[in-house]
Amino acid sequence: MKLRDLGEFGLIDRISAAVTERAAVKIGIGDDAAAIEPSPGHLVLMTSDMLIEGVHFDLELTDPLSLGRKSLAVNLSDLAAMGAEPRYFLLSLAIPQKLDLEFLDRFFSGMMQRADQFGITLIGGDTCLSKGGLAISITATGEQLPELVVKRSGAKPGDLIFLTGTVGDSALGLKLLQRGDKTGFLVSRHLDPEPRVAAGVAMAVEGVASAMIDISDGLVADLGHILDKSGVGARLELAGIPLSDQYRKEISRFTEDCFSLPLGGGEDYELLFTAPPLFRDRIFSCMESCGVNVSIIGEMTKEKGLAIISADGSAYHPSQKGYDHFA
Amino acid sequence: MKLRDLGEFGLIDRISAAVTERAAVKIGIGDDAAAIEPSPGHLVLMTSDMLIEGVHFDLELTDPLSLGRKSLAVNLSDLAAMGAEPRYFLLSLAIPQKLDLEFLDRFFSGMMQRADQFGITLIGGDTCLSKGGLAISITATGEQLPELVVKRSGAKPGDLIFLTGTVGDSALGLKLLQRGDKTGFLVSRHLDPEPRVAAGVAMAVEGVASAMIDISDGLVADLGHILDKSGVGARLELAGIPLSDQYRKEISRFTEDCFSLPLGGGEDYELLFTAPPLFRDRIFSCMESCGVNVSIIGEMTKEKGLAIISADGSAYHPSQKGYDHFA
Repeated sequence: MKLRDLGEFGLIDRISAAVTERAAVKIGIGDDAAAIEPSPGHLVLMTSDMLIEGVHFDLELTDPLSLGRKSLAVNLSDLAAMGAEPRYFLLSLAIPQKLDLEFLDRFFSGMMQRADQFGITLIGGDTCLSKGGLAISITATGEQLPELVVKRSGAKPGDLIFLTGTVGDSALGLKLLQRGDKTGFLVSRHLDPEPRVAAGVAMAVEGVASAMIDISDGLVADLGHILDKSGVGARLELAGIPLSDQYRKEISRFTEDCFSLPLGGGEDYELLFTAPPLFRDRIFSCMESCGVNVSIIGEMTKEKGLAIISADGSAYHPSQKGYDHFA
Repeated sequence: MKLRDLGEFGLIDRISAAVTERAAVKIGIGDDAAAIEPSPGHLVLMTSDMLIEGVHFDLELTDPLSLGRKSLAVNLSDLAAMGAEPRYFLLSLAIPQKLDLEFLDRFFSGMMQRADQFGITLIGGDTCLSKGGLAISITATGEQLPELVVKRSGAKPGDLIFLTGTVGDSALGLKLLQRGDKTGFLVSRHLDPEPRVAAGVAMAVEGVASAMIDISDGLVADLGHILDKSGVGARLELAGIPLSDQYRKEISRFTEDCFSLPLGGGEDYELLFTAPPLFRDRIFSCMESCGVNVSIIGEMTKEKGLAIISADGSAYHPSQKGYDHFA
């Protein structure tokens, strides 16, 4: 069947049919607006991310299932960075005529896999035709108690800097994709990142993180946001930056500076957070329960600015500072 | 200054500076997610609308100020149709390189005019580059007590059908715009529609409306949504359809069927609602306090389907049934 034959309202019915029901959704898909009943005493966290064909993804390089999974994952990652439990999302799609229904079905399957995995429910959105490429816009909501929400602004001098997982994989995965590789760990880190929801919520609930952000623009850029908002500086130890074995194996084919992508590449969707040294052991054991590796990569300083220290003690100057859409 | 020089984060700072602060916004623009404190006992209503260049608007025909005003207005109209008080919104923009900062400043001014008028606060969003046209995606939230929210599904046989304002102006305004007119009542009804927020909230708070929707796809299509959801039919009297003087004056130049655009044109952003006959006088006096005209255009019937009756008592068959993006 063609999208043209199904029609706009047929498409909406098709999407609605795949949605898990939830008691707190008082009005779901199919009215002028959705209505949800927020949990008493909780803040509602809200984040939006737009993914644009030709900018965020290339339909020659990604499959629809991964694209659906990633579109929701990047929003889940923002909620994780606040320590919020995922709740609801709205999906808006501008769809080019060329896309067939099979593509859309695979895309929704992927998105619903991530939705079911993280207990987040689709409650509404918008669908329309695009004269250009595919545009995906998601607004996701989460909840958390006011005193547990983790902002970018709470880092203090002396706090240690923690990072989940490994960085640089996604940026290198993209290079491999562009070279023709279709599979493998690094490629999948780019196409199908795992949002660190359990880890982010745990850091909030344990009350240990003083500031938190997810790595979307790049480690240096995102750490920079914490420095700006917290009004402090940081010292980053290159020796502490966690790199995957696959990354270490492949990177030398592309560049001699193996820290360029981990520091500036972006799209890792790992969590970067700060915490007082006394919480160190609790953080490691808590992350172990979440099944997530965590590394200490530096510490916050009273002196403003970011100092990056190489293994030999010399200052390191990153070649790229992160992604700016308009720069 | 060019957007390129300002950069993504400069643009975000520029937008944040124009935002009115509000106590219930615990975290606003500039973190991974915004955080708001919902009013105790209220439902949170959420709606998303996407506006795509070349599909929803043409930059040759609209000015940026009106585009900013309309982008928010269409979302406010959805909240109005639920009877919800507007609260917060997130704005995502995919911006083509060709757009200059002056355009964006005018666009934001227009959007903020509507935001201030209706007491809705920008709390977050996303900005990125577009390789195609401008894409605007807004998610707006509102609040209302659970028992006051008005759905599409509550219409009963015997309920009267009410319509605010006049219909057909926007569709005719678009035809005039395409012919070269730049100003006038009809053109402005298309470029800068007035969301019926006070009227929608009043109908909810008075507890009089049994079902409500806003006219975005066209009167027949949107009434059809109420019929579907409520499981009833309707009889529509053409003689009751409210047409503006300007519409009556201009329409004969385009078509002999003066009801084609009012029934199928869409984008009127008027409120269509149903209510038991006993609330008739209360509705008229309440709408008068809101400064909004209201007309009775038919009634709901036990027999399924929509019957449209001409002034001479004969059946009328509309030439267009409303907008479907993919049909």
